[in-house]
Amino acid sequence: MTDLEVAKNVTLKHISQIAEIFGIQQNHIEMYGNYKAKLPLHLIDKTKAQNSNLILVSAISPTPAGEGKTTMSIGLSEGLNRLQKKTTVVLREPSLGPIFGIKGGATGGGYSQVLPMEDINLHFTGDFSAIEKAHNLLAAVIDNNIQSKTNSLHIDPRTIGWKRVVDMNDRALRRIIVGLGGTTSGVPRETGFDITAASEIMAILCLAENLTDLKKRLGNIFIGYNYDKKPIYAKDLKAEGAMTVLLKDAIKPNLVQTIEGNPAIIHGGPFANIAQGTNSVIATLMGMTHSNYTVTEAGFGFDLGAEKFFDIKCQSAGLKPKAVVLTTTIRALKYHGGADLKALTVPNLDALEKGIPNLEKHLENIEKFNVAPIIAINKFATDTDAEIKVIMNFAASKGIKVALADVWGKGGEGALDLAKQVVEMVENNTSNFKPLYQWEASITDKIATIATEIYGAEHVDYNSKARADLRKITNLGLDHLPVCIAKTQKSLSDNPKLLGRPKDFIITVREIEIAAGAGFLIPITGDIMRMPGLPTHPASEGMDINEDGEIIGLF
Amino acid sequence: MTDLEVAKNVTLKHISQIAEIFGIQQNHIEMYGNYKAKLPLHLIDKTKAQNSNLILVSAISPTPAGEGKTTMSIGLSEGLNRLQKKTTVVLREPSLGPIFGIKGGATGGGYSQVLPMEDINLHFTGDFSAIEKAHNLLAAVIDNNIQSKTNSLHIDPRTIGWKRVVDMNDRALRRIIVGLGGTTSGVPRETGFDITAASEIMAILCLAENLTDLKKRLGNIFIGYNYDKKPIYAKDLKAEGAMTVLLKDAIKPNLVQTIEGNPAIIHGGPFANIAQGTNSVIATLMGMTHSNYTVTEAGFGFDLGAEKFFDIKCQSAGLKPKAVVLTTTIRALKYHGGADLKALTVPNLDALEKGIPNLEKHLENIEKFNVAPIIAINKFATDTDAEIKVIMNFAASKGIKVALADVWGKGGEGALDLAKQVVEMVENNTSNFKPLYQWEASITDKIATIATEIYGAEHVDYNSKARADLRKITNLGLDHLPVCIAKTQKSLSDNPKLLGRPKDFIITVREIEIAAGAGFLIPITGDIMRMPGLPTHPASEGMDINEDGEIIGLF
Repeated sequence: MTDLEVAKNVTLKHISQIAEIFGIQQNHIEMYGNYKAKLPLHLIDKTKAQNSNLILVSAISPTPAGEGKTTMSIGLSEGLNRLQKKTTVVLREPSLGPIFGIKGGATGGGYSQVLPMEDINLHFTGDFSAIEKAHNLLAAVIDNNIQSKTNSLHIDPRTIGWKRVVDMNDRALRRIIVGLGGTTSGVPRETGFDITAASEIMAILCLAENLTDLKKRLGNIFIGYNYDKKPIYAKDLKAEGAMTVLLKDAIKPNLVQTIEGNPAIIHGGPFANIAQGTNSVIATLMGMTHSNYTVTEAGFGFDLGAEKFFDIKCQSAGLKPKAVVLTTTIRALKYHGGADLKALTVPNLDALEKGIPNLEKHLENIEKFNVAPIIAINKFATDTDAEIKVIMNFAASKGIKVALADVWGKGGEGALDLAKQVVEMVENNTSNFKPLYQWEASITDKIATIATEIYGAEHVDYNSKARADLRKITNLGLDHLPVCIAKTQKSLSDNPKLLGRPKDFIITVREIEIAAGAGFLIPITGDIMRMPGLPTHPASEGMDINEDGEIIGLF
Repeated sequence: MTDLEVAKNVTLKHISQIAEIFGIQQNHIEMYGNYKAKLPLHLIDKTKAQNSNLILVSAISPTPAGEGKTTMSIGLSEGLNRLQKKTTVVLREPSLGPIFGIKGGATGGGYSQVLPMEDINLHFTGDFSAIEKAHNLLAAVIDNNIQSKTNSLHIDPRTIGWKRVVDMNDRALRRIIVGLGGTTSGVPRETGFDITAASEIMAILCLAENLTDLKKRLGNIFIGYNYDKKPIYAKDLKAEGAMTVLLKDAIKPNLVQTIEGNPAIIHGGPFANIAQGTNSVIATLMGMTHSNYTVTEAGFGFDLGAEKFFDIKCQSAGLKPKAVVLTTTIRALKYHGGADLKALTVPNLDALEKGIPNLEKHLENIEKFNVAPIIAINKFATDTDAEIKVIMNFAASKGIKVALADVWGKGGEGALDLAKQVVEMVENNTSNFKPLYQWEASITDKIATIATEIYGAEHVDYNSKARADLRKITNLGLDHLPVCIAKTQKSLSDNPKLLGRPKDFIITVREIEIAAGAGFLIPITGDIMRMPGLPTHPASEGMDINEDGEIIGLF
């Protein structure tokens, strides 16, 4: 059965019933149809939230297909609920654009899904659109100010880093020239569009604590310089009030349900390599306020998303995770051990053994944050008993907990062993989270700590552009911000071809972007794709809908 | 009191209560919060709808400030409901972009408003966003096809008329170059962005009867030509299925309430000069299915929006309006009589008398459709009794019904006389709608009929571009489509400076655009602005929101 077929066989509970299970009265939620609702922020209680056990699901370095973190997160939450631990899974919102490129949504799979999957994957409750509008309002206000004679901030158009966004895979918009057409239609300049998930406003929404904090962060967005080389921020354009108005509903987390009828919160969908990469702080706190266990995810691999989750989000919001579930697949380990991408379903103990060091490094990294790891083997039908045993033996030799989880095939039932081990670990209180670095350290120290400790690099090199950026950031007084390193997810290094556990490599920082509103710096290693393209035959070609509104070809 | 202050003093009914008044069970509506809902299309009954009395509210040639058609429509519907005639007002959705330009929403005013006005003026239920996504998906698919080597339709990029859209006043996007950045980022070409309300998809949504019809129209969108000069349509790109998927909820009309707690339907927001300019056919039929009286509006003036309402929408959907309420203001007549725009609040009987011919021409035009007119004087505080008497006397001399309506100041109570006269006219059955022209006539005949009969022109001139377009349209076999003339709203002619009732003028057609999906041709006279700009001090500068979500400076 396809994910959509599994989903269609489920009789959904009305969202007011889900709210009741979650512990909220029906009149407190804002319904969007019968199966989605927004949760007002007054339902967050930070003191209560501190009593919830926060579990992070991450993964080893993934194959291009991904290793099923979301599916694992949902399955684990179902398993915990089956153990009578009141649990909420808190996830990111899917991006619309990629759905029309290569088939597939982002709502889990098989018997571990969040529902209604079609709505969640399409416009959902309009959060992405609101972010897009707020982002593009600022862009319009910037170009309008350049055009103006009497209200001008004298912004130097060549210094503007703020682009526009659209939630669409549209490569032709990556680099464009705007403002053509003469004196009434703007000032010509080069710019471009990113996909909406890559917007700094998405990152801001995910770190904001409330409307006031949101507005403050929006005002701090760095635009560029004026001709006197003074920095210009969004607040100089008086744009942050109107932007916050546009985000007044988007800031509220969305309540939906899992396939087994448990509450799920889905909110925020930032890029995992140029932002903190997990759902919003508000959503996490909302889940924690109303649950004993709160399961969330960070990816792609632990090195990329989870490091940021710990060092940026947890530090920013005062969160202390109790365990990390490391989603591990036999196919990915075989890939890291040298097996061909097309032969990962073929039994191959040799490649598997050779791939284990990737798993080992991620486990070591988790312990650097003083949080206890559990290996969750995400079961695929092609896994052999002998292969599973290799991982089990490795875990035993290291004294690390391990569970085989068939969350795709069996939902919560397939995650019972994993859930029991999570509970045991939490009840033994083996974690005492500490961040890897202090925000107050110098930028180069922060980057070096992550590169050597987490990635395993020898040292860090800086291009001339990156060195100029370091001076610029120091001059702006922003060197106290945490760093959010953009790096490939395919390798622990910044070279996608170095699989397994690479050693003796250097991390090269090409440039450092400023996300002053979100509150972090983005050292860029390698290429970042902020606007994907469509493939030769986009998935949109196979999509259809009949008169009854039944969608074909979406997933 | 400001509109927002009036609105805030109203205790809103829950939308399920409004649905009940409308005659729909609560379990049939799809709630968006407590005060908005979407109505599924199965609630439309075309046979039942034919028994409803459809009233069109239009206006004389307006001043730049507008003459209050929306406010009049809402007030009239309240008045009719006070007379125990079950009435629904059916309106367009406001566009978001202009709200950040010059202050003001589009939800009526004073004591004739639709609520919740903040939500309706902001993202509402996401219809504009969905239209934007469907539009931009097609654009991305076009540019992706040009980029493709193995899936190519060999489209000549220089012939592509399909732009992108964003619901933002952003003049720098009017004319742009996309596809820069080398071989992986598209093929460079000149294009631009329109505001979302100007999208052909908005026009399509407003004319579609159901999902199947919507998909068919989307497939018929004309893109341009391939290098063999063969026409390319959206269906050649297999885009219409995915576009329809994106619009599956946007096609459903939105239910809200008037300030007096009566049902209001708000759906679709096309430009009034390049599209049919009124709400969706689906919304009108939804209102008519469940009401004895259905009040809708078309503007700017009768010559522009109402002609299209009659000749395109009514013919397309088989609607037969029973009366036209012609919104008339003393200030606009004074303006047409030569008074200065800044002196319209000063009593000026002479200018008023001189402006009457504009009113007279619109009344004559209404009768050309065999529909009975009623003059509704939209009362302003500065109107004098003597001025009002001028219009009353004129109406008496012509034997035309007239009512003074204080809908802004008194809501439904202020529209009681108008409502009584509407009922009397409907019950006397004085209208027998006929369109002005047959769709089968030649393009030049259709244009000439409108230009001479409605605008009062001597004849029509065609530029060389327009003549080439005529040949192109004939070659495409699209000459049977109705025409949707783009013209200034400021004058009955195509010259905004010719006020009153201009005579001896020529209409000049510059070019003719094809909206093959929507199903009409757009002869363009004068300049059309499809992407507005922001003013020197955009309204966004004064907007703010506090921690409780209370908005300041929006209206």
